[in-house]
Amino acid sequence: MVGPRRASAMDFSLRRASGSEWRDKVAGCTIFRHTVVSMTHEQRFAQLQLTLPSAPRPVAVYRPVVVVQSLAYVSGHGPVRADGTLIIGRVGADLSLVEGQAAARQVGLAILATLRAHLGSLDRVKRVIKMLGMVNSAPDFLDHPKVINGCSELFAQVFGEADGIGARSAVGMGPLPGNIAVEIEAIFELV
Amino acid sequence: MVGPRRASAMDFSLRRASGSEWRDKVAGCTIFRHTVVSMTHEQRFAQLQLTLPSAPRPVAVYRPVVVVQSLAYVSGHGPVRADGTLIIGRVGADLSLVEGQAAARQVGLAILATLRAHLGSLDRVKRVIKMLGMVNSAPDFLDHPKVINGCSELFAQVFGEADGIGARSAVGMGPLPGNIAVEIEAIFELV
Amino acid sequence: MVGPRRASAMDFSLRRASGSEWRDKVAGCTIFRHTVVSMTHEQRFAQLQLTLPSAPRPVAVYRPVVVVQSLAYVSGHGPVRADGTLIIGRVGADLSLVEGQAAARQVGLAILATLRAHLGSLDRVKRVIKMLGMVNSAPDFLDHPKVINGCSELFAQVFGEADGIGARSAVGMGPLPGNIAVEIEAIFELV
Repeated sequence: MVGPRRASAMDFSLRRASGSEWRDKVAGCTIFRHTVVSMTHEQRFAQLQLTLPSAPRPVAVYRPVVVVQSLAYVSGHGPVRADGTLIIGRVGADLSLVEGQAAARQVGLAILATLRAHLGSLDRVKRVIKMLGMVNSAPDFLDHPKVINGCSELFAQVFGEADGIGARSAVGMGPLPGNIAVEIEAIFELV
Repeated sequence: MVGPRRASAMDFSLRRASGSEWRDKVAGCTIFRHTVVSMTHEQRFAQLQLTLPSAPRPVAVYRPVVVVQSLAYVSGHGPVRADGTLIIGRVGADLSLVEGQAAARQVGLAILATLRAHLGSLDRVKRVIKMLGMVNSAPDFLDHPKVINGCSELFAQVFGEADGIGARSAVGMGPLPGNIAVEIEAIFELV
Repeated sequence: MVGPRRASAMDFSLRRASGSEWRDKVAGCTIFRHTVVSMTHEQRFAQLQLTLPSAPRPVAVYRPVVVVQSLAYVSGHGPVRADGTLIIGRVGADLSLVEGQAAARQVGLAILATLRAHLGSLDRVKRVIKMLGMVNSAPDFLDHPKVINGCSELFAQVFGEADGIGARSAVGMGPLPGNIAVEIEAIFELV
């Protein structure tokens, strides 16, 4: 698809306006939100100034992503930091809820890195279909959905709420490979 | 699709017959089974006189169901009772096998509530494709398939055996969010 | 599809050559690999001289495989031996890594048996889309991807590397039904 995605006539008129006019208009919250929604995923991604890790290379016999019939099946990803290290430990024991959420967000960044590396652009992604969020959790830790929100909220920011929020399961299991804190697999629909 | 789904000529002739004739004929087991199979899902659902909980609202950043290419991806559902409370505890420790099966059936009722709320009618469902049944189980509890049967048997009743039984995995994991006894996610094909 | 799948002109010329010529040529690794890749899945399967268990019959209310829109959803399979017994125990406690890998390979053989029984031929399989590998593991066992490689490497041998390696998650959970060592569910694309 060429050009901004789902850009409305209103959005284009805002862009045609001069810089100062545009700023005045976006000061109105409704207009600002409208503008954000009609940005492309890559434009929104750029605006968020996120730092992605390198797209993780498979550590075993699998592919990071497989595309079939406009669906991209993304392998289970771990919380890879920008320096390539992994966030380790059990949420509710070694890691707090907030640290677990940060780990889930880091998994989301790793998935974005894989999508960009394999699809060329986040604009190839139409929407999130489904996620399975797996939390390496202590036996008495029960807030798995809040942990996985760390990833879901990132996707809502990058893809917009309409396209970035899909079906989901968020559960405790483990141990996870290498004692990573969170692992998430996902299905995306492509344009 | 308008009208009864997969209704056979025989089925229509049974319905055209007067009430008493119809009752006589359904007394024959073969005819009864035939008639049951050719009922619509909503007709079968009504006949079972089930009490559904309210369609669960997301407790986090996800959608209860996402439809893509005639497949409905249903998020992980918990055992929500009609009064909105959840069935809590580990099967094999806090709950017996039979209580675990009842919990799985309650998850199935919650999924039916979600399908009806989001699709308008169970007649939109063509068949069950796949389920992942997750049992919050004690370390020495090994009868997960029997637990998840509580949901699978409900779906076989509502959608009929041909359409209501799909592929499945039924495993132990945990803890589950809020210490719920069972969580199930599923994929349905729509008409 | 009739005849060898994706056989190239070069492959056919190799097959037309006499036996001795063919052997000389396959001594060169590149040519050998080329020939292997262009064999059908059934031809490759025959060459590997594998012993499959009987296709597992459902132990509960599910179907071993459901096909929708050219995708085959395969239910969670366990490590069924050719004599029908199951490989039992936790990897990292009762079973070593190598024994866990053998269990995962045995799961793969059970899945191949299901595919052949339900599709008629492995040539109906186009490629592996996605696997969820579940390892019944000790709390301190963290090499789940290496375990599930036992299945992934088998699929790469039977379907070729291009088609036999898909997206994947490989995690620890449990207990698994009947205390089996490994359970794997998978999605295949069909031709």
